[in-house]
Amino acid sequence: MVPHLITALTGPINELEQRILESMPAVERWFRLEWMEHTPPFYCSVDIRNAGFKLAPVDTNLFPGGWHNLTPDMLPLGVQAAMAAIEKICPEAKNLLVIPENTRNSFYLANIAQLQRIFRGAGLNVRVGSVDPEIKKATAVELPGGETVTLEPVVRSKRRLGLKNFDPCTILLNNDLTAGAPGILEDLHEQYLLPPLHAGWSVRRKSRHFQSYEEVAKRFGKMLGIDSWLVNPLFNRCGELDFAREEGMECLRTNVDALLAKVRKKYKEYGINEKPFVIVKADYGSHGMGIMTVRDVKDLEEIRKLPKNRPPVVKGGKAITDVIIQEGVLTAERINDAVAEPVVYMMDRYVVGGFYRIHAERGVDENLNAPGASYVPLAFAESTRLPQPGQKPGASAPNRFYMYGVIGRLAMLAASYELEATDPEAETYE
Amino acid sequence: MVPHLITALTGPINELEQRILESMPAVERWFRLEWMEHTPPFYCSVDIRNAGFKLAPVDTNLFPGGWHNLTPDMLPLGVQAAMAAIEKICPEAKNLLVIPENTRNSFYLANIAQLQRIFRGAGLNVRVGSVDPEIKKATAVELPGGETVTLEPVVRSKRRLGLKNFDPCTILLNNDLTAGAPGILEDLHEQYLLPPLHAGWSVRRKSRHFQSYEEVAKRFGKMLGIDSWLVNPLFNRCGELDFAREEGMECLRTNVDALLAKVRKKYKEYGINEKPFVIVKADYGSHGMGIMTVRDVKDLEEIRKLPKNRPPVVKGGKAITDVIIQEGVLTAERINDAVAEPVVYMMDRYVVGGFYRIHAERGVDENLNAPGASYVPLAFAESTRLPQPGQKPGASAPNRFYMYGVIGRLAMLAASYELEATDPEAETYE
Repeated sequence: MVPHLITALTGPINELEQRILESMPAVERWFRLEWMEHTPPFYCSVDIRNAGFKLAPVDTNLFPGGWHNLTPDMLPLGVQAAMAAIEKICPEAKNLLVIPENTRNSFYLANIAQLQRIFRGAGLNVRVGSVDPEIKKATAVELPGGETVTLEPVVRSKRRLGLKNFDPCTILLNNDLTAGAPGILEDLHEQYLLPPLHAGWSVRRKSRHFQSYEEVAKRFGKMLGIDSWLVNPLFNRCGELDFAREEGMECLRTNVDALLAKVRKKYKEYGINEKPFVIVKADYGSHGMGIMTVRDVKDLEEIRKLPKNRPPVVKGGKAITDVIIQEGVLTAERINDAVAEPVVYMMDRYVVGGFYRIHAERGVDENLNAPGASYVPLAFAESTRLPQPGQKPGASAPNRFYMYGVIGRLAMLAASYELEATDPEAETYE
Repeated sequence: MVPHLITALTGPINELEQRILESMPAVERWFRLEWMEHTPPFYCSVDIRNAGFKLAPVDTNLFPGGWHNLTPDMLPLGVQAAMAAIEKICPEAKNLLVIPENTRNSFYLANIAQLQRIFRGAGLNVRVGSVDPEIKKATAVELPGGETVTLEPVVRSKRRLGLKNFDPCTILLNNDLTAGAPGILEDLHEQYLLPPLHAGWSVRRKSRHFQSYEEVAKRFGKMLGIDSWLVNPLFNRCGELDFAREEGMECLRTNVDALLAKVRKKYKEYGINEKPFVIVKADYGSHGMGIMTVRDVKDLEEIRKLPKNRPPVVKGGKAITDVIIQEGVLTAERINDAVAEPVVYMMDRYVVGGFYRIHAERGVDENLNAPGASYVPLAFAESTRLPQPGQKPGASAPNRFYMYGVIGRLAMLAASYELEATDPEAETYE
């Protein structure tokens, strides 16, 4: 099912859909050639927003949670992709250690149970090793469905990380390291640690990601003969922000103003009668804390009204000093009256599924992954891999899902560029 | 659903299922390491028979038809496997040429339409090039479902094969070359021709395949600590057979007798109260022509009653001179009262689906793929990739399907060994 698009101006997105479908052999070939040069991140999920006139990623998560939201139908694709990934990284693998977030939240642990299921299906012994200092012995947590996840304390030797009587070849991080990589994960040169530590939020910057994405989108747009703006959210960044001081705010005001002007110009070019807006958010961190929707530079004054000693924060308790100012992309998709945002899941180079994040109480220009967001996941009804050429643009769910898969892969490719550029161990040839 | 197993002695197969499931990480690792040394055939299908006490492949098809019998649910797996295959062989590919059998049979062409769908899903331009001299211009054939397949005459230049205005990077054979490889397919060194010509039935011998299979089964059995007979059908062969002459028959009688004795001994070892039988069939050719079920060497006298000038034939009109004598594996699976034989489909190294070939009018020891067999395909209800450890052996369909997938992959691996051994262009280091 394609959720009902309420924006009047669905022409551009339907044209884009048609263009992408017509060019499918060129698109797939382009990705194959890119993956010859660049290694995909082990797995990732991408939040996408469809404005009807524009389709763009707004967030790329390299430690995707929410795997439990994928339907059982999609699992075999995940297993097959996991087989391909493992085969490339460590064919002799028998044991895989998953490192989760330090939480016992049962929704999150349902995600871990699903990851276990996927990698067991790929034929690995999978155990969950917690780096939470509070986990001192094997702790079974029962999930609402009756399943159990057992968290075990990790055991570090000089050169390896494992569990008691469990020596893994590969360590899969599902912990986004917002608070920094714990020392226990450092200097593991004998094992594969995936994704690498520099994919954690203590190193990663959203602005760096969207800089890579812009590069990817431009090349993709050129190949396809389209304006890359149709798939690329514009952005600025502002470093060394200090909400308490006038100088720190000036940088924000200037950048917000400049970006709003740029978006306004683009809207004019495409005849879009919507009010442009930008999203100001922390340049790091996986959740939506500290996110502001700004329609006018005057909105920034709201920040001043916050108590001086309580600046907007991000997960992990750090005050925001770096922000990304991102073009706001309306979400024009609806399921009944609720706003819907597609999320695409990938493993290795394959799109293995996705779902809609649906939220009845949020607006079209608000973030749907905000803290406490009680969104309802709605799994994609069909595969992203079976487009139906010849269908009327905008009318075929498989075609829409295929297009989401293309955008998701563009963001994954950008993450690959980003991780190469920020790899502390990269060799430089100068 | 696991079809009802009527054989009383289901113990061994349930033990085998449990053994394979328990050892899944070892099994998958073993396959991964094998695929590092050996290239899987591009695609294949394997006919499997489940006797309740034994589970074995009886035929391995390197030019699988019947892709249309897979459910839409299984298609995304096929597409993903096709992406993996193409990526390895020819990442820069845009165009794929499929060469079908020389027939307009609409069931067969539905298979070709499905292959087109799969490779289009993987992002290729796919066209169908016939080597049938009767196809002199583009010929659209409408299928019962309303779909159309267009057969176009192939165009050969000095070094390449294609269609008018269509130059493929890869040529996919779905024509088993029983009558020999046409000259038009020879000396194509600039394009990938898959599977290679020596996979055709003018070169391939079933006895060669089962010789490789025996090797694979023994190594697999050793790794798993099981008697390889549980997954391996015994066989003998008889070359230069001449049904018209006494000397030619003597070889057949001796080999049938010896194989029946071997199987009898194995049945005794396992306490199986069934009458052993063997299948005598042509050593080449994809269909069941000329197949005989032999329970006693005296049955061979039946052959003498055939008119001397009409020996059993194989497809393509050639008289049988080479036969394989294969241990008969009862099919103990039933759907209602009909005999059911699982068929597993693979692409690249992945099991992408399967179905049951069901035939109400055939016996448990007869071939279900005989000419004119009006079998009913019943797609596997679930993926072969989601086993459920901890289930009672024999009770879980996903576990049974996983086991079928393992046996199918063993046969695919044997085909890989076989093609390496028979490659006319292989370099020998002596």
